[in-house]
Amino acid sequence: MTAERLVVIGGDAAGMSAASQARRLKGPDELSIVAFERGHFTSYSACGIPYWVGGDVAERDDLIARTPEEHRARDIDLRMRTEVTEIDVAGQRVRALDLGSGESYWTGFDKLVIATGARPVRPALPGMDAPGVHGVQTLDDGQALLESLDRAPGTGRAVVVGAGYIGVEMAEAMLKHGFEVTVLNRGEQPMATLDPDMGRLVHDAMDGLGITTVNRAEVTAIRTGSDGRVRAVATGDASYPADVVVLGIGVEPETTLARAVGLPLGPHGGLLTDLSMRVVGHDNIWAGGDCVEVLDLVAGRTRHIALGTHANKHGQIIGSNVGGGYGTFPGVVGTAVSKVCDLEIARTGLREKDARAVGLRYVTATIESTGRAGYYPGARPMTVKMLAEYRTGRLLGVQIVGRDGAAKRVDIAAVALTAGMTVEQMTALDLGYAPPFSPVWDPVLVAARKAVTAVRRAGTA
Amino acid sequence: MTAERLVVIGGDAAGMSAASQARRLKGPDELSIVAFERGHFTSYSACGIPYWVGGDVAERDDLIARTPEEHRARDIDLRMRTEVTEIDVAGQRVRALDLGSGESYWTGFDKLVIATGARPVRPALPGMDAPGVHGVQTLDDGQALLESLDRAPGTGRAVVVGAGYIGVEMAEAMLKHGFEVTVLNRGEQPMATLDPDMGRLVHDAMDGLGITTVNRAEVTAIRTGSDGRVRAVATGDASYPADVVVLGIGVEPETTLARAVGLPLGPHGGLLTDLSMRVVGHDNIWAGGDCVEVLDLVAGRTRHIALGTHANKHGQIIGSNVGGGYGTFPGVVGTAVSKVCDLEIARTGLREKDARAVGLRYVTATIESTGRAGYYPGARPMTVKMLAEYRTGRLLGVQIVGRDGAAKRVDIAAVALTAGMTVEQMTALDLGYAPPFSPVWDPVLVAARKAVTAVRRAGTA
Repeated sequence: MTAERLVVIGGDAAGMSAASQARRLKGPDELSIVAFERGHFTSYSACGIPYWVGGDVAERDDLIARTPEEHRARDIDLRMRTEVTEIDVAGQRVRALDLGSGESYWTGFDKLVIATGARPVRPALPGMDAPGVHGVQTLDDGQALLESLDRAPGTGRAVVVGAGYIGVEMAEAMLKHGFEVTVLNRGEQPMATLDPDMGRLVHDAMDGLGITTVNRAEVTAIRTGSDGRVRAVATGDASYPADVVVLGIGVEPETTLARAVGLPLGPHGGLLTDLSMRVVGHDNIWAGGDCVEVLDLVAGRTRHIALGTHANKHGQIIGSNVGGGYGTFPGVVGTAVSKVCDLEIARTGLREKDARAVGLRYVTATIESTGRAGYYPGARPMTVKMLAEYRTGRLLGVQIVGRDGAAKRVDIAAVALTAGMTVEQMTALDLGYAPPFSPVWDPVLVAARKAVTAVRRAGTA
Repeated sequence: MTAERLVVIGGDAAGMSAASQARRLKGPDELSIVAFERGHFTSYSACGIPYWVGGDVAERDDLIARTPEEHRARDIDLRMRTEVTEIDVAGQRVRALDLGSGESYWTGFDKLVIATGARPVRPALPGMDAPGVHGVQTLDDGQALLESLDRAPGTGRAVVVGAGYIGVEMAEAMLKHGFEVTVLNRGEQPMATLDPDMGRLVHDAMDGLGITTVNRAEVTAIRTGSDGRVRAVATGDASYPADVVVLGIGVEPETTLARAVGLPLGPHGGLLTDLSMRVVGHDNIWAGGDCVEVLDLVAGRTRHIALGTHANKHGQIIGSNVGGGYGTFPGVVGTAVSKVCDLEIARTGLREKDARAVGLRYVTATIESTGRAGYYPGARPMTVKMLAEYRTGRLLGVQIVGRDGAAKRVDIAAVALTAGMTVEQMTALDLGYAPPFSPVWDPVLVAARKAVTAVRRAGTA
């Protein structure tokens, strides 16, 4: 009997987690695993790049969870700098291009895992490719940015395009390098993953940190100097001098290969899978990580969320299923946390516009409290906004902006959303209380109580 | 029409929350409120006393959420230093003793709230009342302890009796005063609210902080000097020199009044109530806070838990019901968090012995991870232990010991317990991930994954 062959396209979180988990369940006699990675690295934390660039993390290699050699030591035939250029679904094979040698060849598969990740959104604007303009998607990007920062004077000016998670994290990193930082934000407020009223709190805090945020700023061009390097970023009505530009505009699923062969894509361009992470309509093809769409359990629709924690879960589940075990990914509730300096930012579930978009009528409640007992040293303000469904009172979403202990408090709401709890049920939650960790009423409970009142008032209106 | 009269016995969290909430719903024309408090203070945070004694909180009054004057300004007839000495259930009246004047009188009620709190356990041992021996239950206790500390040399020796929440918190407070601290613990390991294997981690950390912990130490006497002040604490086989002794042995429900008139008490000596916090069998008597037993939703039995957060919820619910609104207290899952210096300690649900006591067969999984991404600065070890029911895989309990971010992570499990989730369902939870806040697999998810495996293995054994 010959071993089954598993082919994995993409050597980062989802792909290599799948390969590793499959290997745990089946030895090389039963399953041979070939993995293709077009870049220089495997299994690294892209989410850690802002902290490496900012100097919190000393070494690039600290971000690498597992090297190619470590994967190979587990009997995974990992081919680095090798790009899959074509999938032959009917023929059960992929064509790979060795980027070093230029050689191209076909490799057959019994089972295929597509984990091609996401690519940064790059608007086609003049000067976008000029030296000094940097994405922060890959370790190579981070290295190039660090080299660019070394070239720029310590008192230089950095412009960050985009005010989402990557944008605000990179603003912090640039600040740590001594740069004067301007964030150009297309939206009404930074952190468009929050409602604008909560994004405003982030804006105010960034002001306090000395970061200039320009809202409703649409970048129209990158201006370069006579040396070809970036000099400024132009918007419709202004120009912002820049020694370095960081692009944090977001990402979209990298599904070029899948699209070429007609694999099913969702409204956001990501692959569609079933609960076992199998590509819809294809018994022997799985997909996971930043190239798929995931079911939003609150909205009842698919979304595209590029996040390492989902990619790792997908990989784990795919590896289990491919290796003869069993696992499913039920979906997400849309939890995300971040920080800019000591300001913590968190969200889960639906924003107001998300709720409207899926036809949910809702009430909101916003409260201000502290992360510790008010009298305990270091107690700082924390704002919690809660959305609950009209009439039923079902929790729809929570956003938190504050200091110490704000971010991970959103997990309370993430579990409550998963369980389909009402805000009234939440008021009885038995959450950890001690003065260093929470007021006697946890801020999430205070918000839930206010949301209960809002639901009741709306119901009798 | 004359106003209904509400009488409240006890002026701390539960009693005054009930009074305040009732007043919010009904004005003085409809409801008159008389509240009796035998002490000097109302609505204060007993949980904050260790931090006041330790110097983290500067002033005693910082712990007072609302003064008698503030309550009176809300039309609550609050009678301080007045002890209720008898309840006449059939006659709907209580007898009160003015501790200042010695005058005793009856006051009638239409509705009664019993919020008499808890009293510290005080073993009847020689020397227990000697100067230098201190409880830390009330603000007066804290003041007396602080005065005692001022008398003792800065390099004195403190013995803390008891190694539960109060014990370890007081050990920290004594350490901050420059004392050499010994904790005498009756149990196998400190923090008996954890399983011993997790308590051992607390023991090790206390060692590291320079706190001596003596396990299996049964105090037999307090030895005093010729001046009558404490000199040492004797156990069966040793004597520990002490300039000051702090008792942190725990509390029991203060239900003397209720017991005298045959109100229903549970196995732990606390009042039994229904879901609306009404005393069982009595339509016009409510009880809440440290004097009642609460339903443990995981064990399906009542427990006694003295904790401000429950007392506040009870008061809120009682006040709503008494004031013509509606509220219920479904029960608890047994969440508690604490710290000793930078070591965070948390638990929720059942320990191994709790599970055994109620006939639950279970598996355990213990994992070590970090509170942040391993490469992020400040990542420190965190140990998570999880109990899941045999076969069903239902979550039964979680214990966490670690540093930054350990304590409040238990809230994830508290919500999951409330929702009746299985550990397999928990592996899919969409928890907040970013390198400063969590590894890509949150420690709770890592524990859940290991628990899933344990359930599966046990099921096929």
